[in-house]
Amino acid sequence: MAVVTFATDFGASDAYVGAMKGVVLGVAPKAVLVDITHAIPAHDVRTGAFILADAAPYFPLGSVHLAVVDPGVGGDRNGVAVSSRGQFFVGPDNGVLTLAAPRPRRVFRIESPLFRRETVSPTFHGRDIFAVAAGQLAAGRPIDEAGPMLASMTELPMPAVQELADDCRGEVIHIDHFGNLITSFSSGAAGGRWELWCEGRRFELVGGRTFSDVDRGALVLYAGSGGRMEAAVRDGSAAVLTQSKAGTQIHLKRLS
Amino acid sequence: MAVVTFATDFGASDAYVGAMKGVVLGVAPKAVLVDITHAIPAHDVRTGAFILADAAPYFPLGSVHLAVVDPGVGGDRNGVAVSSRGQFFVGPDNGVLTLAAPRPRRVFRIESPLFRRETVSPTFHGRDIFAVAAGQLAAGRPIDEAGPMLASMTELPMPAVQELADDCRGEVIHIDHFGNLITSFSSGAAGGRWELWCEGRRFELVGGRTFSDVDRGALVLYAGSGGRMEAAVRDGSAAVLTQSKAGTQIHLKRLS
Amino acid sequence: MAVVTFATDFGASDAYVGAMKGVVLGVAPKAVLVDITHAIPAHDVRTGAFILADAAPYFPLGSVHLAVVDPGVGGDRNGVAVSSRGQFFVGPDNGVLTLAAPRPRRVFRIESPLFRRETVSPTFHGRDIFAVAAGQLAAGRPIDEAGPMLASMTELPMPAVQELADDCRGEVIHIDHFGNLITSFSSGAAGGRWELWCEGRRFELVGGRTFSDVDRGALVLYAGSGGRMEAAVRDGSAAVLTQSKAGTQIHLKRLS
Repeated sequence: MAVVTFATDFGASDAYVGAMKGVVLGVAPKAVLVDITHAIPAHDVRTGAFILADAAPYFPLGSVHLAVVDPGVGGDRNGVAVSSRGQFFVGPDNGVLTLAAPRPRRVFRIESPLFRRETVSPTFHGRDIFAVAAGQLAAGRPIDEAGPMLASMTELPMPAVQELADDCRGEVIHIDHFGNLITSFSSGAAGGRWELWCEGRRFELVGGRTFSDVDRGALVLYAGSGGRMEAAVRDGSAAVLTQSKAGTQIHLKRLS
Repeated sequence: MAVVTFATDFGASDAYVGAMKGVVLGVAPKAVLVDITHAIPAHDVRTGAFILADAAPYFPLGSVHLAVVDPGVGGDRNGVAVSSRGQFFVGPDNGVLTLAAPRPRRVFRIESPLFRRETVSPTFHGRDIFAVAAGQLAAGRPIDEAGPMLASMTELPMPAVQELADDCRGEVIHIDHFGNLITSFSSGAAGGRWELWCEGRRFELVGGRTFSDVDRGALVLYAGSGGRMEAAVRDGSAAVLTQSKAGTQIHLKRLS
Repeated sequence: MAVVTFATDFGASDAYVGAMKGVVLGVAPKAVLVDITHAIPAHDVRTGAFILADAAPYFPLGSVHLAVVDPGVGGDRNGVAVSSRGQFFVGPDNGVLTLAAPRPRRVFRIESPLFRRETVSPTFHGRDIFAVAAGQLAAGRPIDEAGPMLASMTELPMPAVQELADDCRGEVIHIDHFGNLITSFSSGAAGGRWELWCEGRRFELVGGRTFSDVDRGALVLYAGSGGRMEAAVRDGSAAVLTQSKAGTQIHLKRLS
């Protein structure tokens, strides 16, 4: 029986997540439920897509990933079930799934009555459509029973991944819980000293492997665990120090 | 093997929730554990009751719902195990269970040594009584072994559900994570334009089905996913805009 | 199949926890995953150790506890797998495990390729080493296959547990979600009236069994559920009232 993961902007203080899980278990009683996060900022499809793409590859083949960041719920966007790299993805067709479910992929519009509750609230497709669809896939029902296959889905515009170079411009993609800056530069060899320009201010970084390669409070530039260059303050917050956030433009220059 | 859900005001930063789950798994190793929420405001029995009632109906028959919002723990309130609509409910008899476990119900005071740990902390019945009781029910032990049946339990005073009408007065029952106002009005046809009076201020709303029926930043009035009328700001927070909170009195008038 | 618990300082808003769980399920598909907490303050090994020690004893024999508060990740600290009191503990050898896994214990440095992913990120051993190790132990692989046995591990300096006496000095070990002060005094008979000195200010407490033994807003001193004396404000926050935090020195004197 498959894993079903959950990534939403629902927060952890309402009944919404519990109701979705109840519906999944009603359809797939032996599913293993795993929260990725419910703390995606409200309506922030881009952050949701980024986090889902960072977690999904570590789950077993056959896992079903349910992602709900869905400001257009009940409107004319489609709900979709997607198959990619041996895993399944369920959610609104607004871009939240595309980074985690790269091409080649098969995309189905969820239409079958078997893939939704009898009554569907126009404001809670997470519970009334996506949870049922995820449960059916976890229980082994073929994805092509969800509805008609679609030729394409809504792709999310994301900053291109840039090569790390001695003088390169990119942006902050995500600030993590520790205040580490995840950048748009792909992982490369960071040895030596660097300067980081960010909103007109200049910082010096030491290229290293991990936090303890620098002194407490110093900035380190390293190849992060998600395949991108990251900047961190040892035992501190690079986001606070550099006052950057997702979307901040950055300029990296090698000093030595 | 049954589902055991958890709804508490314990927060997510202490050992309390983990200890409860460990105890449940010691009694019912194959129970499927699901968090509804641990973010009920401290001691807020009313919000706990509301959230549990909104989530519980979506779980399979036989599920066991453990709810702990328990300011009177260790005092003279009873601990109870309740059967209602084919599900089980365990917690303090202070009203937190009554909305989720409507009549007809069977209520048992938890007294049996099989339904509690050998040593019971006067400040943590969640771990030492309710988790054991939930585990026993999840493992299939009959609820009438918990202790003596009670003729009644503490009912929670909640605002009566009102019919939506062209001129109607009610209150905000809950503010959700998105800042949506869940009201005491039952779901009805909301088409047309409305005005909302709230703490002496006036707002205009458009009756719709879902958020995207209005422009970004506008207020929409719709039949919510929990069976009550709700008011939301598309891509924003109605709670911030209207400065309302749980308990705020509201007055709705149809304009067209 | 065993339980795997998680206690980290990763927060709940990134992909880190999900990725770890995916890896565990890849190794041990039938493991039961339980979050203890992901809200340990960043890099706070001491609080992590305290919370893990308070939760672990309530889990079944054979449970695997994965704890990651790891400011030295990728540096020269060891990663270890530990057996103590019939349970397993996996994490960095920086003290986070020692309170939960008391002596006698067996400690193994994690070195075997079976106990780590093929590629290990220097900044995310939680995913690339500890999750694999926890999965292997949950799946039944003998702990002595992890790597060489170590004679000792890094012990965490913690305040000695003091006996409660009529005039005693100690400290606040932890502030819980409710603002209750968990102290370094072991549980004792607290009847009568007490004064608490804390940062030069004086408070009166009533010794009791539980919160409802005092009036709303009053301070109660009681034997807490974790085996230590605690101070709480009924329906309020003792931390706010006394302005204390973890580490605050306190002085208790019996008045009657």
